[in-house]
Amino acid sequence: MFPKKTTFPLSVEPFQEDYSGRLSWANFGNLVLRCASLHAEENGFGITYMQEHHQGWVLSRLALEMTEMPASLEPYSITTWVSKIFRQFTDRNFSIEGPDGKIYGYGISTWALIDYETRQPVNLENLEHGGFSACLLEEVPPISTYARARVKNEELAGTHDCCFTDLDLNGHVNSIRYVDMGMNLFPLEWHREHPLRRIELAFGLEGHCGDHLEILKENLGDNRFAVEIRRPADNVTLVRSILTFA
Amino acid sequence: MFPKKTTFPLSVEPFQEDYSGRLSWANFGNLVLRCASLHAEENGFGITYMQEHHQGWVLSRLALEMTEMPASLEPYSITTWVSKIFRQFTDRNFSIEGPDGKIYGYGISTWALIDYETRQPVNLENLEHGGFSACLLEEVPPISTYARARVKNEELAGTHDCCFTDLDLNGHVNSIRYVDMGMNLFPLEWHREHPLRRIELAFGLEGHCGDHLEILKENLGDNRFAVEIRRPADNVTLVRSILTFA
Repeated sequence: MFPKKTTFPLSVEPFQEDYSGRLSWANFGNLVLRCASLHAEENGFGITYMQEHHQGWVLSRLALEMTEMPASLEPYSITTWVSKIFRQFTDRNFSIEGPDGKIYGYGISTWALIDYETRQPVNLENLEHGGFSACLLEEVPPISTYARARVKNEELAGTHDCCFTDLDLNGHVNSIRYVDMGMNLFPLEWHREHPLRRIELAFGLEGHCGDHLEILKENLGDNRFAVEIRRPADNVTLVRSILTFA
Repeated sequence: MFPKKTTFPLSVEPFQEDYSGRLSWANFGNLVLRCASLHAEENGFGITYMQEHHQGWVLSRLALEMTEMPASLEPYSITTWVSKIFRQFTDRNFSIEGPDGKIYGYGISTWALIDYETRQPVNLENLEHGGFSACLLEEVPPISTYARARVKNEELAGTHDCCFTDLDLNGHVNSIRYVDMGMNLFPLEWHREHPLRRIELAFGLEGHCGDHLEILKENLGDNRFAVEIRRPADNVTLVRSILTFA
């Protein structure tokens, strides 16, 4: 009835690469979210449903792990499916493959559906007509789940002033921009030797245009770094993340 | 023999929009460059030719003028063709259309082909076998050509520290990032009332990771602003631009 898994064929197009000649994490992250959005729409829980019901999907957690990024002009695909509904949350997964069955990587994500009138998350187990439970596929990618990491080091690693071009459709700082903020704590020489292999993000409050953000970093060892992004104006954490480099 | 004009069908995909729900200028600008790159490749003067000859196309000037941007999920197309070769330069044009023949806008651009060994531009009139003169189409878009504007006002409007995620494949700051830098001089309230309608950019030296840039702005009247981006370390101008808002 529903397409449980959908595979979106893509290729690395000119101007989607980073300095290494491979798909940039910013473009990749937004393409992952694009495929999530298109799959939700196909299953009746995308933009059309959200507009009718005055609700919106909010990304709560995201982890993406890549053995490597596809290079310029290379074809690849992003496959996505939903594996679980638990009260206010649902888990969506991703696999990223080459045309010959080569696995580039995997992703996991957790989402909540927010009611715009009450500003509260909807209980996804009680949606009318069973909601999207018919499209669940109990299969999870073979990558480790979200870790917990707090930055104890209070030394400022960077700052970011949120600006117009950071904003998404909802007027919030685009989720993947926080990956850029973390990556930009490291110089070009680091990225040359240590390509980013895994990101994980836990989202708190949303950032807005004009927000001044403070970025804190902690070396967890083995080329893993916890990065926390805070808004000092109201003393809140917007994002807790872990970046793992090769 | 050569495809003089090529039309690339596109649509505004989820996560390509800006705050207004329309295609963002950053995504649009890079898609325009993508289509230029694909058309050059089709005509034998793209990435394959450049790699064989140790040469590279460098964008010298760009103007894009849009009556409006296509909205979320809307189909549109970018058509591109080359109209002129004059010594070291060539002019490439763009038209952006909706499926019903609606015109969203036009673009003009000027490029040079740099020889990586001599660091000098190649004379495009003397390429072997006539070069790409067979694909020229003497037709120019109905928009005004590049204007000249200098910023006389020396007051700093902003700064930007070039970072890893600004870089393109060549290790230079991506051309369209300079549009973001100009747009981000204006608050959200300005963009809400005055969508950006036209950009024009004249490129000087390239920016690199770690460069500290100074951004100067001058109000030319009628919602036109000259924006100049300088690198104080060696006192050079990277980009002179004019942004025209509605």
